[in-house]
Amino acid sequence: MEKRALLYEGKAKKVYQTEDDNIVWIEYKDSATAFNGEKKAEIAGKGRLNNEITSLLFSKLHDEGVESHFIKRLSETEQLVKKVSIIPLETVVRNLAAGSFSKRLGIEEGTPFSKPIVEFYLKNDELGDPLITDAHIIELKLATEEELNELKEKALKVNDILISFFKEIGIRLVDFKLEFGKDADGRILLADEISPDTCRLWDLKTNEKLDKDVFRRDLGNLTEAYENILSRLGGQPACTK
Amino acid sequence: MEKRALLYEGKAKKVYQTEDDNIVWIEYKDSATAFNGEKKAEIAGKGRLNNEITSLLFSKLHDEGVESHFIKRLSETEQLVKKVSIIPLETVVRNLAAGSFSKRLGIEEGTPFSKPIVEFYLKNDELGDPLITDAHIIELKLATEEELNELKEKALKVNDILISFFKEIGIRLVDFKLEFGKDADGRILLADEISPDTCRLWDLKTNEKLDKDVFRRDLGNLTEAYENILSRLGGQPACTK
Repeated sequence: MEKRALLYEGKAKKVYQTEDDNIVWIEYKDSATAFNGEKKAEIAGKGRLNNEITSLLFSKLHDEGVESHFIKRLSETEQLVKKVSIIPLETVVRNLAAGSFSKRLGIEEGTPFSKPIVEFYLKNDELGDPLITDAHIIELKLATEEELNELKEKALKVNDILISFFKEIGIRLVDFKLEFGKDADGRILLADEISPDTCRLWDLKTNEKLDKDVFRRDLGNLTEAYENILSRLGGQPACTK
Repeated sequence: MEKRALLYEGKAKKVYQTEDDNIVWIEYKDSATAFNGEKKAEIAGKGRLNNEITSLLFSKLHDEGVESHFIKRLSETEQLVKKVSIIPLETVVRNLAAGSFSKRLGIEEGTPFSKPIVEFYLKNDELGDPLITDAHIIELKLATEEELNELKEKALKVNDILISFFKEIGIRLVDFKLEFGKDADGRILLADEISPDTCRLWDLKTNEKLDKDVFRRDLGNLTEAYENILSRLGGQPACTK
């Protein structure tokens, strides 16, 4: 497969065409952003960590029957994925109160829920990715009621799989954000990435934060935290040659 | 009935005990507040207007089979209502995009919806009355799923009745906020008020705003706008003695 013209550059990734119209080449960047782009940094090695972790998690999910856009890892910072048209919703699953949920509703971080909560946010930087209800989504024709149910179902399945998977390696999956897209046949596929940039991951024993909150809240060294996750997942340390 | 000790003073009303534990005496105040209390004013006559309009609308709703806490109008600024324990949710029904909906989702004011949208906001001044989803409400035990469905059903029924009622007097019902409470028997009753403070009311022909947006956005004379609504509803002008 051949890397061709740059199609799109986002905050965390570059997307390139390939000779196949249905396949794109993703390059993970070292940029870290938070608070809708207000806080920014370049963190050497972050692109590699998110690419490796996402590749491992999408492979794991594939083994458990969850289809995603992921085709294969190409290098430390690159992967090949199916081209999808992204549904402009961020699907968030929460197992414990944290972050914007805690702030918005005044619930202490770490409070467990009786069952996982699925939320949707409108993907729109200008509007600050606002929380959006099912009725809004249907009225704005962002998804049909059937699609919305499919998103919720898929998100909860991913949650079930990832909770157990992370538990085995001593990590509590607090919450995470998914994006979904439609392929050329209109099928809904899990897309984007699953990494410490898009999950809250706490050490099961110490509650140490091993995710982007390290960056958001200046809690220490981001790459150390992400490296910790990658190594527990069985990933390889960086190539040192 | 006798007005006894002050039980509670809110932004717009005072609530007094009566000799009957299940009945309270409401006095509407002349205070106007907006943006979670950031903008404030005293507007002579506003208490009377909201009391008169609410009394007329609750009576109308009663005639159409919607039970509320309203018992009777006592004076220009006072009414007697059943004592209820307020469910800490603001139930909003929207027929056209406006206000926070337009701002939050980037939809132009006045855009009509294919069907009415019901939203819930957590009644919590400290948190700025945030939008809250069904899943949040159930997890936080603010209402059960059955109660939530009852709130939506009641809100949509009120909407149906009020749309026609306002249409007859040349007013477009853009959106409105309701509060519900539980009486001593646990029945859910419509409560609080329905007035230009809690509705967006636009003149059907000119789109002139005849509601609290006049105050929020400094569009002119608030009492003239509210007086216009009261007079179209068949209410009496202020007692001039």
